[in-house]
Amino acid sequence: MSFVAENVSLADAIAAGDSRAIARAISRVENGSPDAAELMKAVFPGTGRALIIGITGAPGAGKSSLVDKLAMAYRQRGERVGIIAVDPSSPFSGGAILGDRIRMQALGLDQGVFIRSMATRGNLGGLARATVDAVAILDAAGFEKIIVETVGVGQDEVEIVKTADVCVVVLVPGMGDDIQTIKAGIMEIGDIFVINKADHEGVLRTQKELEALLGLATREDQWQPPIVKTVATENQGTRDLAAAIDSYRDFEQGATKTSDRRRAIARWRILELLQERLLAQTLNGNSASETLDQLAAEVAMKQRDPYSAVEELMKQRSGQVQNLPLQK
Amino acid sequence: MSFVAENVSLADAIAAGDSRAIARAISRVENGSPDAAELMKAVFPGTGRALIIGITGAPGAGKSSLVDKLAMAYRQRGERVGIIAVDPSSPFSGGAILGDRIRMQALGLDQGVFIRSMATRGNLGGLARATVDAVAILDAAGFEKIIVETVGVGQDEVEIVKTADVCVVVLVPGMGDDIQTIKAGIMEIGDIFVINKADHEGVLRTQKELEALLGLATREDQWQPPIVKTVATENQGTRDLAAAIDSYRDFEQGATKTSDRRRAIARWRILELLQERLLAQTLNGNSASETLDQLAAEVAMKQRDPYSAVEELMKQRSGQVQNLPLQK
Repeated sequence: MSFVAENVSLADAIAAGDSRAIARAISRVENGSPDAAELMKAVFPGTGRALIIGITGAPGAGKSSLVDKLAMAYRQRGERVGIIAVDPSSPFSGGAILGDRIRMQALGLDQGVFIRSMATRGNLGGLARATVDAVAILDAAGFEKIIVETVGVGQDEVEIVKTADVCVVVLVPGMGDDIQTIKAGIMEIGDIFVINKADHEGVLRTQKELEALLGLATREDQWQPPIVKTVATENQGTRDLAAAIDSYRDFEQGATKTSDRRRAIARWRILELLQERLLAQTLNGNSASETLDQLAAEVAMKQRDPYSAVEELMKQRSGQVQNLPLQK
Repeated sequence: MSFVAENVSLADAIAAGDSRAIARAISRVENGSPDAAELMKAVFPGTGRALIIGITGAPGAGKSSLVDKLAMAYRQRGERVGIIAVDPSSPFSGGAILGDRIRMQALGLDQGVFIRSMATRGNLGGLARATVDAVAILDAAGFEKIIVETVGVGQDEVEIVKTADVCVVVLVPGMGDDIQTIKAGIMEIGDIFVINKADHEGVLRTQKELEALLGLATREDQWQPPIVKTVATENQGTRDLAAAIDSYRDFEQGATKTSDRRRAIARWRILELLQERLLAQTLNGNSASETLDQLAAEVAMKQRDPYSAVEELMKQRSGQVQNLPLQK
């Protein structure tokens, strides 16, 4: 069977909600297989119906519990939920797999829930691109809600969460002056703020600090991000969070800003993908990988600077690019 | 004055430790100016003498205070210290600038200390590359110790810290089960672990959990990462940390693994830089930027999938690449 035909039938199985097909498709985009592009083109027309919810916050804020409880709340409404946990760990640490296993016990037996961890693979990156592709696959599979949860608060995670329809930022009480640090990274992307572990000391202070910070900012779209208090482990406040997400979705659908945001997301997706493709094209030549090893050794021994090493690789590339077939 | 001549004289001023020249050079690599490559080539021969210390950990772990106190400890030994704070905030939040200003009061009047925040600028990224270039500039300027501190624990930050000679991971007591989450991202890069805020409750438990985790891991180089307890705000334990860093440096200098690590870092640097260059080359054409806007609009309106948009951009590129002058 040709690539195209196989991908069309896989796309059909995804559209039918076949969870094995979904898992296989996500593995394909995660591994960056050569036929992933055809698959995503076949999947694309079926996307655009799901509400994509991005959840981020400091490690230890209890994001996973919150996500699980939110998913259960959606299940009680009869909605199907996809969860993508973005875990920038190495494949060796086992963090992602362990996390999956624990969660599978609570939610995994439910056919209306699909959980998947996405982890980084090596130097060529592509985690952000793979995550956005995985979301599109779940969207095409008819999940009404797709939750993208990140482990870290780094640049990659922020970029990924920004591609969601609604961004939830999770804080915990007692962060004190450190709320300033959080602010730097993720405050401006939050459409909704959660103070989780709201049974801990210092809730009021964190809330006041947060309100003060939010008061300083003015959003172009005039949305006033609500603060929701939760105790995820006790399933307290989960429905309030679901309601806040609904409110924002309703607000957004009426706003003109949505199209700007979607355009910015599309632009970012194209650039991520372009970068990955250009790098693969440059390094896929027969001798390129050897040349890279050799240049890395020279730079490591201070015999050469990295800038001239890159010029060397680009010179090789411009010689061969005319003969290189375009990836179709 | 030609680019080359100007960059050589700037490199000379850097080598003489002129702090205005250093600041100007860092701005240049941060903005990705066209002549940054020539500058870095001129700077490169002067690098390789500094000890580069990477410090990472969860937001709220007190990294900034710890870095400041560590810098003071080095100053007392008479060493010059460069500090690069990697802050993946938007340029609008003001986080980086505020942070700088507060720190300047304590350390900034000291001519032996140079502090600089590096923040992300827009879609084309390059933060990791710019940070590593800034470290090289400080190295060439003769700073004996260069501390790279990250705000987040995302993939970018982990990559940046991995380029250091020694990686310090900062934890705080009372993280409970969340130490598992931290583990996923950064445990394996730690050469030294710090439990900061060691006057808080739960130190012993955190230490035991950390010891258990470290006991599970086996490092190729047989190094046993020490755990140092600090109260940075009270300047307690700072000298122990400095001593632990010295021990690791001594250990590393005798180890054969160093060259592997240096080669992996060099490889990563080349790939980061290559990616940035390829993207710039593809998007610098006259019509490319308009094409990108048009394609992003089409993808946003679901009239086109991102994969075929990228193929469109690459097709344009392969048509023009033969006529494009190589950046020298």
